[in-house]
Amino acid sequence: MQAWKDYQAQHKDRFLNELLDLLRIPSISAKSEHKADMQKCAEAVQQRLLEAGADKVEIYTTEGHPLVYGEKIIDPAKPTVLVYGHYDVQPAEPLELWKSGPFDPVIIDGKIFARGSCDDKGQFYMHVKALETMVKTNTLTTNIKFCIEGEEEVGSPNLGKFVAANKDLLKADCILISDTAMLSLETPSIDTGVRGLSYIEVEVTGPNRDLHSGVYGGAVANPITILAKMIASCHDENNHITIPRFYDDVVEATPEERKLMAAAPYNEKEYAADLGVKELWGEKGFTTNERTGIRPTLELNGIWGGYIGEGAKTVLPSKAFAKISARLVPNQSSDKITDLIINHLEKIAPPYVTVRASLHHGGEPYMTPIDSKAYKAAAAAIKDTFGKEAIPVRGGGSIPICALFEKELGIKIVFMGFGLDSDNLHSPNEKFNVENFYKGIETIPHFHKHFSAI
Amino acid sequence: MQAWKDYQAQHKDRFLNELLDLLRIPSISAKSEHKADMQKCAEAVQQRLLEAGADKVEIYTTEGHPLVYGEKIIDPAKPTVLVYGHYDVQPAEPLELWKSGPFDPVIIDGKIFARGSCDDKGQFYMHVKALETMVKTNTLTTNIKFCIEGEEEVGSPNLGKFVAANKDLLKADCILISDTAMLSLETPSIDTGVRGLSYIEVEVTGPNRDLHSGVYGGAVANPITILAKMIASCHDENNHITIPRFYDDVVEATPEERKLMAAAPYNEKEYAADLGVKELWGEKGFTTNERTGIRPTLELNGIWGGYIGEGAKTVLPSKAFAKISARLVPNQSSDKITDLIINHLEKIAPPYVTVRASLHHGGEPYMTPIDSKAYKAAAAAIKDTFGKEAIPVRGGGSIPICALFEKELGIKIVFMGFGLDSDNLHSPNEKFNVENFYKGIETIPHFHKHFSAI
Repeated sequence: MQAWKDYQAQHKDRFLNELLDLLRIPSISAKSEHKADMQKCAEAVQQRLLEAGADKVEIYTTEGHPLVYGEKIIDPAKPTVLVYGHYDVQPAEPLELWKSGPFDPVIIDGKIFARGSCDDKGQFYMHVKALETMVKTNTLTTNIKFCIEGEEEVGSPNLGKFVAANKDLLKADCILISDTAMLSLETPSIDTGVRGLSYIEVEVTGPNRDLHSGVYGGAVANPITILAKMIASCHDENNHITIPRFYDDVVEATPEERKLMAAAPYNEKEYAADLGVKELWGEKGFTTNERTGIRPTLELNGIWGGYIGEGAKTVLPSKAFAKISARLVPNQSSDKITDLIINHLEKIAPPYVTVRASLHHGGEPYMTPIDSKAYKAAAAAIKDTFGKEAIPVRGGGSIPICALFEKELGIKIVFMGFGLDSDNLHSPNEKFNVENFYKGIETIPHFHKHFSAI
Repeated sequence: MQAWKDYQAQHKDRFLNELLDLLRIPSISAKSEHKADMQKCAEAVQQRLLEAGADKVEIYTTEGHPLVYGEKIIDPAKPTVLVYGHYDVQPAEPLELWKSGPFDPVIIDGKIFARGSCDDKGQFYMHVKALETMVKTNTLTTNIKFCIEGEEEVGSPNLGKFVAANKDLLKADCILISDTAMLSLETPSIDTGVRGLSYIEVEVTGPNRDLHSGVYGGAVANPITILAKMIASCHDENNHITIPRFYDDVVEATPEERKLMAAAPYNEKEYAADLGVKELWGEKGFTTNERTGIRPTLELNGIWGGYIGEGAKTVLPSKAFAKISARLVPNQSSDKITDLIINHLEKIAPPYVTVRASLHHGGEPYMTPIDSKAYKAAAAAIKDTFGKEAIPVRGGGSIPICALFEKELGIKIVFMGFGLDSDNLHSPNEKFNVENFYKGIETIPHFHKHFSAI
C-alpha cells in the first residue's frame, strides 16, 4: 500500500487546490437565485470524476437540481461500492458572522474555512481522490459508483424518483457515505445511525394587515405573542416535547447501548465551554450524548415577524412565522411526526388567529448494523490508518435519503465520516481540517481493499 | 367666514398637489440611509411655511434630524398658538404588501395612499394651508408658531433639548397638535389623551455560534425557544401583564368615564370584521375601547432569529431578538416601566442563555383637560364645521413629547386630529382621506378664531 501513500504524498497540494476550486462555487440549493451555480457545480463534479478515472459520468436533470452519476467498473463479478454524497451546500447566512467569505476558501491553522468544506464537498471529494489514487496505482479491487446529488440540504425531493427509476444503474453491494463526523483523529469513530427529520414552517395570522400598536394595541391578538405561546407550550418543564403521541414509536435504547455510549470519551464541561454557555440544556433523564443521539428533538430553526430593521417601529404585525424541525430516532416515521406536529400546531391555535403549517421536507431515521460486511470493512480500514479500533456512535444529524436507499436498493449503508462536530456545519465559518481531508483520502482505499476481500 | 371657504375652494387642487409633493420625500427617521431625505424634507417644510405667509422660518440642526421652526406674529399682545407636528415617517416595510409605492402617492376613491399621508405630513400640512388661508384673507386673529420636528417616529430624542433651550422662542398660550384620529366625519371626536411608551429591544444569546441543529439539537438551549418562553410568560391567562409592579401607578378610570366611553358609537363586530379576526383579544374585564384607551399594554413589534430566508436551513441559532413596547397610561412613568421590563426580562432569563435588554425610546402618557380654553376652542371649531358636538375620547397612540412640552412650557396641549383609526398608520397602504384633509383645513381657522375670542 506504499504506492497509495507515495501517490497521495506526491499530489497532495493539487488535491487540496482542486477542493478549494470546488468550494468557490456557491451551490446553495435552497435559493433559486443559485440555479446556474448548481449546474456549474454539477459540471465541475462530472469533470473531476472523469479526470479521476471514471469510465462514464452523466449529469441527470431532475425537477430540481441536477444529479451526477459516475462509475468505474473493473469487473462486473467484483463487489460494487456505491458512494453517495452531495455537492449542494446550506445557505451561508448570517453573512456578517463569517470571518472570511463563505465562498472564498482560506486555510488558517490547517483548517479550510468555506461553506461546504466539510458538508459535503470536502468529504465526497475524498472519494474522488481515493478513486484517482487506486486507478493511477492500478490497485482498484471493487467497482465504484458515484451518486452525487444537489438537493441534500433541501431534503432530496427528487432523489427518490431517480433511485426508483435507476435501480439497475445503482445496483451495488453497499452504500458508502462520508457526510458525518468522527469524535476526533485521536478517537476515531463510526456513526451507526442518523436521525430522521420533519421540517415544518408555520404561519400565524392575526389581523388582516399590520396595525399601529398604539391605536390597536391591547384589543387584538398579536401573532408574535400567540406564536411565542404556541412554541413555549411545545416543551414542558423537563424539556420533554408535549406534542401528543410524539414519543409513541421511539425505540428506547437498551441499558447496554447507553452504557457503551457513556464509555465514549466525552467531557460535558469542555462541551459547554466550547459553546460558551454556562449550563447545558436538554431532556431530563438523558446525558448530552444521548440527547443528540438516541432521543428525538424539536428545534426552532428560524422565527420572524413584525419590524426587524434598524431602530423602532410601533407596529402590531399581521403575521408571524417560524421554521421548526424535529429530529427523529428509530422507529419514528417522518410522515407521521409531520402530521402530529402540523395537527398539534393547528389545534392549539387560539381563536384569535389563523395558523397554517406545512412541511418543508422530511426524512426517516436510519440505523446501520455493526455486523454487516460494509461496517466491518470500514472498521478495518480505520484500524489500518489510525491504528485504533473505531468506536460506534449514533450521529445526531440527518441524511434523509438513507432509508429510501435501503428500501429501493435492498443494500446496507455504512457511514465513514471524517468531519468533526466542531466543524461549524450549517453555521458561519464552516471548516474542515486539512489533516482530516488527507486522512479520509488515505483511509478510503483501505475500505475498498477490505470490502472486496471480506 | 365665507372668505375662507372661497379661498380654499379656489386653491384646493393646489393644496392637495403640494401635499403629494411632500409625500414623495422618503423622510424615514429610523434609517440612517435617509439622512439626506430628512434634510430635503425639512427644507421643503421651511419653503412651504414661507410661502404660506410665515414671517420667519428657521431650520435648527440637532444631534439627529433637523427641526423646522416658523412663526407668524401679528401682535405680541394677541394669544399665541404653537402648532406641533412632524415631517418624519415610519419605515415602510413590509414593502411587498403595499399596493402602490409608499413614496409614490396615489389617490384612489378619495383616499391619498402614501407613507406619512396621515401620520403626520397630511395633518401638519393642514395647519400650513390654514395659515395661508387666514393670511391671504386677512383674517388671522392669533399669533401662530410652528414646531415641525423630524424625530417623532424615533421618540423625539433631541426635541427635549431644543424646547428647554428655546423656551422664549416657543412661548405660547396653547399647543395644537393634529397627529391623532377622530371616530369618523359623522362622529367627530377629540382625543383627551395619548398613551406613553417604553420601547425595548431584547437579545437572547444561547451558544456562541450558530450550530447544526442535528449535531447539537437537544443538548443546548435554543435562544428562539427560550425567547418564546419569556415572551409567553409576560401575559397570564387573562391577558394581564405579569411583570411585577407594572400596574402599580395606573390611575383607574372612574365609573363615570367608563360610562361615557361606553356611550361612544362603536360596534365590536364591525371592528373585528374590519380586522379580519374571528375573535377580539385583550385584557379580561375591559371593553375594546377601554383596552386601547385607559389600559396599558405590552406588544411585540418584531421578532427574529435563525434562518428566515427561502427554504429550509437546519440551524440552531446563536441569537434571537425581539422589539417589545409597552403603551402607558396616567400615572405610569416611562422610565420606571422601562426599568421594570428590562429587569424582569433579565431576571426571568434561564441560566442557559444570556439576555440583554435596552431601551429604544420612551415617552410619558398625557391627558388634556376638557375644561381648558384650548379644548373649548377646538370643540367650538368642530361644531362650526361639522354641526355636531365632538365626543371626547382617549387615544391609544403616543406622542412622546407631550408631557415634556407641558413641563417645559407650562401650557396645555389640545389634540385636533382628522385621521381615522383605519388609516393604516405605521402599516402598508397608509392613507388619508382627501375629505378629511380638506375638513381639517376648514376647521383650523375656526379654532384660531375661537381661541382668540374665548
